Amino acid sequence: MLPWQTIVQLDRDGQCPVYLQIVNAIIKEISQGRLQPGQKLPGARRMADVLEVNRKTAALAYEELMAQGWIDINPSSGSYVAESLPVGEVKPLSKDSPNGAHVPNLVVTPSRHLRPYSPPPSYKYAIDDGSPDPRIAPMNSLMKHCRSIVKSYYGRRLLTYNDVSGEATLRAVLSRYLLETRGLHCRPEHIIITRGSQMAIFLVFNTLLEKGDKVIVSKPNYGSANWVIRHAGGELLEAPVDKDGILVDEVERLCTRHKIKAAYITPHHHFPTTVTLSAQRRIQLLSLAEKYGFVILEDDYDYDFQYGSAPILPLASVDNSGWVVYSGSFSKLLAPSVRVGYLVAPEPLIREIGNLRRIVDRQGDTVMERAIADMITDGEIQRHLKKAVKTYRQRRDLFCQILHENLGDQLEFEVPEGGMAVWTRFRKPMPDESLFDVLLKKGLYLNVDRYFLKEWQAIRLGFASLDEEEIRASLGIWAEAF
Amino acid sequence: MLPWQTIVQLDRDGQCPVYLQIVNAIIKEISQGRLQPGQKLPGARRMADVLEVNRKTAALAYEELMAQGWIDINPSSGSYVAESLPVGEVKPLSKDSPNGAHVPNLVVTPSRHLRPYSPPPSYKYAIDDGSPDPRIAPMNSLMKHCRSIVKSYYGRRLLTYNDVSGEATLRAVLSRYLLETRGLHCRPEHIIITRGSQMAIFLVFNTLLEKGDKVIVSKPNYGSANWVIRHAGGELLEAPVDKDGILVDEVERLCTRHKIKAAYITPHHHFPTTVTLSAQRRIQLLSLAEKYGFVILEDDYDYDFQYGSAPILPLASVDNSGWVVYSGSFSKLLAPSVRVGYLVAPEPLIREIGNLRRIVDRQGDTVMERAIADMITDGEIQRHLKKAVKTYRQRRDLFCQILHENLGDQLEFEVPEGGMAVWTRFRKPMPDESLFDVLLKKGLYLNVDRYFLKEWQAIRLGFASLDEEEIRASLGIWAEAF
Repeated sequence: MLPWQTIVQLDRDGQCPVYLQIVNAIIKEISQGRLQPGQKLPGARRMADVLEVNRKTAALAYEELMAQGWIDINPSSGSYVAESLPVGEVKPLSKDSPNGAHVPNLVVTPSRHLRPYSPPPSYKYAIDDGSPDPRIAPMNSLMKHCRSIVKSYYGRRLLTYNDVSGEATLRAVLSRYLLETRGLHCRPEHIIITRGSQMAIFLVFNTLLEKGDKVIVSKPNYGSANWVIRHAGGELLEAPVDKDGILVDEVERLCTRHKIKAAYITPHHHFPTTVTLSAQRRIQLLSLAEKYGFVILEDDYDYDFQYGSAPILPLASVDNSGWVVYSGSFSKLLAPSVRVGYLVAPEPLIREIGNLRRIVDRQGDTVMERAIADMITDGEIQRHLKKAVKTYRQRRDLFCQILHENLGDQLEFEVPEGGMAVWTRFRKPMPDESLFDVLLKKGLYLNVDRYFLKEWQAIRLGFASLDEEEIRASLGIWAEAF
Repeated sequence: MLPWQTIVQLDRDGQCPVYLQIVNAIIKEISQGRLQPGQKLPGARRMADVLEVNRKTAALAYEELMAQGWIDINPSSGSYVAESLPVGEVKPLSKDSPNGAHVPNLVVTPSRHLRPYSPPPSYKYAIDDGSPDPRIAPMNSLMKHCRSIVKSYYGRRLLTYNDVSGEATLRAVLSRYLLETRGLHCRPEHIIITRGSQMAIFLVFNTLLEKGDKVIVSKPNYGSANWVIRHAGGELLEAPVDKDGILVDEVERLCTRHKIKAAYITPHHHFPTTVTLSAQRRIQLLSLAEKYGFVILEDDYDYDFQYGSAPILPLASVDNSGWVVYSGSFSKLLAPSVRVGYLVAPEPLIREIGNLRRIVDRQGDTVMERAIADMITDGEIQRHLKKAVKTYRQRRDLFCQILHENLGDQLEFEVPEGGMAVWTRFRKPMPDESLFDVLLKKGLYLNVDRYFLKEWQAIRLGFASLDEEEIRASLGIWAEAF
């Protein structure tokens, strides 16, 4: 209920009768649009008690308001602000701002470094740029774990403020898990739990970079990483990519010409082109980092999803110089909305990143983090991963087969060794509108980075989140449209 | 399991017998510390299959490794890296970094604008600086809602990537809830869901401020807000606080001398002093914002917790000029670890904040957000609030009474009208160590901002999270110690 005592300020020794003061105060609220037509009011008796006035006084005020046509009183259901008001209109809300206000003076300069975001439209089918399928993930079990944790004693402690680095058990379990799955050697104090890879990227570059610092990235690269780097004051130096990943010779050439602060790479598998960074180039990159003294942020979001050959060990696992900062995520393992990822880095960096993280969102969801730790200990995450890899391999094969059959004349691509998407190139230039708008009209929403189409005549098509019916239907729509 | 195919690179036509190649590869892994003493290895048969070699070859390799003392083979339980290794030692991990590396070159300059964070020690009792008590919150029901949402159809859609502004239903429900509880008029498109108030503060100032922009804050002020402002490049201009909140005359004096970009206020109730910003000063602040054209971030984290008189309406509810940006949080209503809050602002600002939020953590926990929306619609949040206010009022009274009885000779304070903490001033200077360290030794952890003790000879003591036994015990420890 609204704080009527403060809205209706009564001057009990004043000239104006108390009931009229109530009437005027409520009319003011209505005409200023803070009480809306149809909005329920407390009954006269309730109002009398709240304002500490005689009930007759409140009743009188309500009668007056009804007489003037400001409120309707329905004996059974109560009192409401009238749907059609006696004088004028409720101040209309401007679309631009709350409180019906325009904001002529508040100038919001859009950052040059950020891309305007547009929320998803409504659609029947969608192809993303490489998301997992939460429908096959043990989400139910995750929620079950969360619930029982909350009921437990330690769960209640987890509900208060906690370590900015993340839930202790998860960090302990992770240090073991990373050793066993990636040969990556670290202790809990080398780990900070983040909100998915995105926050890992954000925290690392906002901690490391000062204005003008140079960062080597691949070209093309993951858009959100480029935006973070530039928003943090960094300057992008781009190196091309071939079938074995980023061109290390080009990286070295850049090192000889500029003082490099950091490099951002996606070795397994490169975003957006899906190629794997070869073992040889990984070793070369490491020695460049040592020789020229720059940090490598190894965003290994895709390590777990390998369909043919075994994955190549992360750079972080063979790094002995401490230049590699490693990030991974459970969002790909479980669901995009489960924003739990991690960073592995030298302790001084972890500490400073923690200081920053504290003012960004204070801490993560400790209950969720603990639940994931329990699911790793139970082996449930690992079992799901086995199942998911099998499913995604089948979907990759079906998707690529149909893509080739239906659209092979317009599109070319290599079947990716892993990951969740296909890097698809158009044989002939394809204008933005005609592709996205036409398909959306037919019920297929391409939820991908349009920039790649403009610049590269290519897009990244995700297959992992689509079941057989959805693959056939969405690619069917596409084939029909073109 | 580790990707043995890539760890053990076999040269099948090489000089070195295959079994020895396996031996050497595994010894290398062990001596480089990537395989740890006691770590389990796949059985010889499994290894043979994975490496696609004859099982005899793998068996031979394992025998060789055992003969050399690198591994132990236990017929029943399997093969393990030996606990005591034949030559040298596994490379010891340095405490400074993962991968056993030192980082002589990676220089991490701690930001001048951030405070070093130290994780909580272990303790028996703790007094925080004003947290809610999750033990009385409907956390069980929240988890129940989350679970059933995940099971539902729309729940599965919520698990994929979603609008950066937050879950649509919650924003719709909130716009109604804010009108009904605060007379705050806004549409869903004026709202962005954040990770608690902290992220709201972070997003607003990182969107609004350019280097050198001046921001008015109270003195003393919420530390995390000051750190955000300075980290975002802003300059703090401080105005003192009295029993009616920030001194508006001082604010105006600052406006006449500097171009002000924004002001940060905590009207209900001021952090840390717990005073309420008077209605008159709210109106004055609003007209200053209009006159001098600066944004007011109204951090109303405490609005719901009022024990005597009714709350005063937010500035945002009477603002018709659109200068007020309003933030609130469910972390105080439910639990600190539930990082769900919201920002209400003009649409252009909301859009730009969304562009930034996208690169910070991409989006919130849509399932949790939807669950909170459902609990508001059910009236469950409101019912809990009623109960919580009653409980916290009793705890405030008991806490203040015992604090006065036990420590009245050393401490002075006013009983707060609302909120979750008491602003407690020391009658005689009290050195940092003697207070915090002595109490921690006796089992009482004061989880408060020590800076206030240094600068103000005062600390903020939270009562809401403590039940009767904990209040008596913790204040008992204190009284005993001093």
